[in-house]
Amino acid sequence: MRHIILTTLLLSCTVGVLAQPQEPRIEPDGRVTFVYADDTASIVQLKGSFIPKKKKIKTPAGTFGREQVYDMQRLPADSTTWTFTSEALPSEMYTYRFVVDGRPIADPANPCFVRDVKDTLSYFIIDGETGGYYMDRDVPHGKVERVWYPSTMNNMAQRRMTVYTPPTYDEAEQDSFPVLYLLHGSGGDETSWTDYGRAAQILDNMIAAGTIEPLIVVMPNGNASLDAAPGESPYQQSEPSALNITSMLGKIEYAFVPEVVGYVEQHYRARQSKAARAIAGLSLGGLQTIYISANNPDTFDYVGLFSAQTTNLLTSKRAKTISNIRNKAVNLMNMTGFQFDFLSGGKADKFSHVQIYEDFETKLAVQFHIKPYLYYIAVGEEDFVLKLNNDFRKKLDEKNYPYVYHPTDGAHTWENWRKYLVDFLPRLFKNE
Amino acid sequence: MRHIILTTLLLSCTVGVLAQPQEPRIEPDGRVTFVYADDTASIVQLKGSFIPKKKKIKTPAGTFGREQVYDMQRLPADSTTWTFTSEALPSEMYTYRFVVDGRPIADPANPCFVRDVKDTLSYFIIDGETGGYYMDRDVPHGKVERVWYPSTMNNMAQRRMTVYTPPTYDEAEQDSFPVLYLLHGSGGDETSWTDYGRAAQILDNMIAAGTIEPLIVVMPNGNASLDAAPGESPYQQSEPSALNITSMLGKIEYAFVPEVVGYVEQHYRARQSKAARAIAGLSLGGLQTIYISANNPDTFDYVGLFSAQTTNLLTSKRAKTISNIRNKAVNLMNMTGFQFDFLSGGKADKFSHVQIYEDFETKLAVQFHIKPYLYYIAVGEEDFVLKLNNDFRKKLDEKNYPYVYHPTDGAHTWENWRKYLVDFLPRLFKNE
Repeated sequence: MRHIILTTLLLSCTVGVLAQPQEPRIEPDGRVTFVYADDTASIVQLKGSFIPKKKKIKTPAGTFGREQVYDMQRLPADSTTWTFTSEALPSEMYTYRFVVDGRPIADPANPCFVRDVKDTLSYFIIDGETGGYYMDRDVPHGKVERVWYPSTMNNMAQRRMTVYTPPTYDEAEQDSFPVLYLLHGSGGDETSWTDYGRAAQILDNMIAAGTIEPLIVVMPNGNASLDAAPGESPYQQSEPSALNITSMLGKIEYAFVPEVVGYVEQHYRARQSKAARAIAGLSLGGLQTIYISANNPDTFDYVGLFSAQTTNLLTSKRAKTISNIRNKAVNLMNMTGFQFDFLSGGKADKFSHVQIYEDFETKLAVQFHIKPYLYYIAVGEEDFVLKLNNDFRKKLDEKNYPYVYHPTDGAHTWENWRKYLVDFLPRLFKNE
Repeated sequence: MRHIILTTLLLSCTVGVLAQPQEPRIEPDGRVTFVYADDTASIVQLKGSFIPKKKKIKTPAGTFGREQVYDMQRLPADSTTWTFTSEALPSEMYTYRFVVDGRPIADPANPCFVRDVKDTLSYFIIDGETGGYYMDRDVPHGKVERVWYPSTMNNMAQRRMTVYTPPTYDEAEQDSFPVLYLLHGSGGDETSWTDYGRAAQILDNMIAAGTIEPLIVVMPNGNASLDAAPGESPYQQSEPSALNITSMLGKIEYAFVPEVVGYVEQHYRARQSKAARAIAGLSLGGLQTIYISANNPDTFDYVGLFSAQTTNLLTSKRAKTISNIRNKAVNLMNMTGFQFDFLSGGKADKFSHVQIYEDFETKLAVQFHIKPYLYYIAVGEEDFVLKLNNDFRKKLDEKNYPYVYHPTDGAHTWENWRKYLVDFLPRLFKNE
């Protein structure tokens, strides 16, 4: 490994609208110029979250946009440099990659990237109405902790969570704080909300602006078979293709209140009342949020579903066999266009926690009899879980269970999940 | 952005010697098989820290190995799959990349990577004597915190540090702990020691084994012009090429004890005595360690130089002009083979802290009169700072200043810095 001393520049990624000596270059009018140097490439293209999706593809769940790529141009004077300048972009955090002769790569000139499952995506932020929440600003910063808590799940002794404590946490030692439990989606882990989700910046900025009161935010790892992010776990994933299915067998939901909430309320100055507890999750984390809150109707006064996957694979009739799950999974796949592999065999004690999914109608009735202060559902009109959410809302409507519905444009993306967090936070802890 | 739900597998990266269903595959005998799927590549090669450096290159600082690449082979039966199987590798953490038609990329099938300046390197760990320290194990884990502390440096209000607190920190609320301040090198930041350096795993494992007593480890950002890692800083780097020079103008050293040590001893249960404070740094962080400890001879009883850059660019004769620095930088570059850009203009108040470098002989005399309990110098025989370290040791020898010298094989690499940390830790806090 070559290590060059006294060499280049670590740069900030949260660039404003002023031109900056780094890649990509953001013009004062919001246009963005990407530059890629390569002396052997034949075709260089650009792929990014700012590129409108044009071609429509039909799936059983609806018609959605397909990703487009833009061609980059060689600079006439210098045949090894490829560039592309976008139109003026609205304020947002954007991810992108170069596609070099068909192979996607992160921008080698940009030190800012996030992990998306196993991909590395470069990113930049355009300041303003939306991106302004995600920028690092010179405001008081909370602390971000990676913490291991005891767990009995899958014979792991410990699991990892990320905890945000607000800037005043250390100063005000007599104060206690309300807590939001914030869950990631499939393919994510305990680092997703702080990395891709910019949760720490959102919280710092909203607390500094006085838009929200100081709170603790807990972001645990929601994968039943993994205790921590890649590179941070002592365990092997023995059935990788079954990973997400094993996260839908009730274990996460079953252990959540005793293990996660229990640890937090023992180790942090967390206010211990229903009115001071919120839970929200995106996608798979939304599914977990539904069942954690329904199984603990006295625990959370605030429930947030962000593009929630609303259907568990086990339904209320207890599924006892793998083939049963397989059928349900195929149905879900057909309906939504989800791509996934799943259990090809084995039964084991995987179903010891499915009671978490049983008698859901009754549990929901109890939950809404006790009444959460806020039950919040946000989903985009191009999101492939839109139909699932409509079905779920119909179920709530039939029973006259009250909820706040926050429909948006857009799809199953971090752009939406960040915005949902920004929209959700000021609604919290209003009845303490 | 496409986000596939219910899809693949986040895998652990700290794989043992058992074959695992992930990339790369580690055979029971320590051979490692790399697999890369690509249907358009013409040549795929492999670059990695496990590949012996063969071709020698001469520099003014000595003769060193040059990186080699290995050719990967297409699987006969499947022309889109390229593979390479290594010889049996000794226990270690290894980084690697594929070179696809000349372009280095991280392994798309391996979710474990570290940032090296702006590159993304895939990694794997082979358990055993050396790699065993870096593996995540089912032992009690300390907490890793990202913390902002107040600073007056460069008109930044706050700077970020990483703090490791040991597993017993929360339980033993009456206890206080000794502190190691651990500094990164040029191109690094406050995340380097925990990511590339595996500091949290090393500490967890050594504390669990009883090899060391519980301690706090503080890893601040040592770049004067940057307050935090890429993506975490509100500031722009206005003179990117000057970055490392501005970190060698005394500001970091000047502010270290009042700001970093001051914050830690106010906010953590840190024992506040010379015998309970250690400081160590790699490369540029080694330079900072030399001057922080010499300017505060009463503060640290343990001083560790890991492949230290031992020469400041300003010497004891105060440099008042940029051209003066430029000349010194060119000299250093010629001697060591360092590649770097530096200040092309401007003067400003950049030199307000150079007194930290002045009268070094006198300061060193005071430091060794008071006597640190341990002054530790580790460097590899192929390291391009070897000559600088030999010169520095000659200076210590001439005055009969005692130090522990830990010469090793290897070069200016994280392999060595991790090993130096493992070697250094058990030597700490023996005179409390």
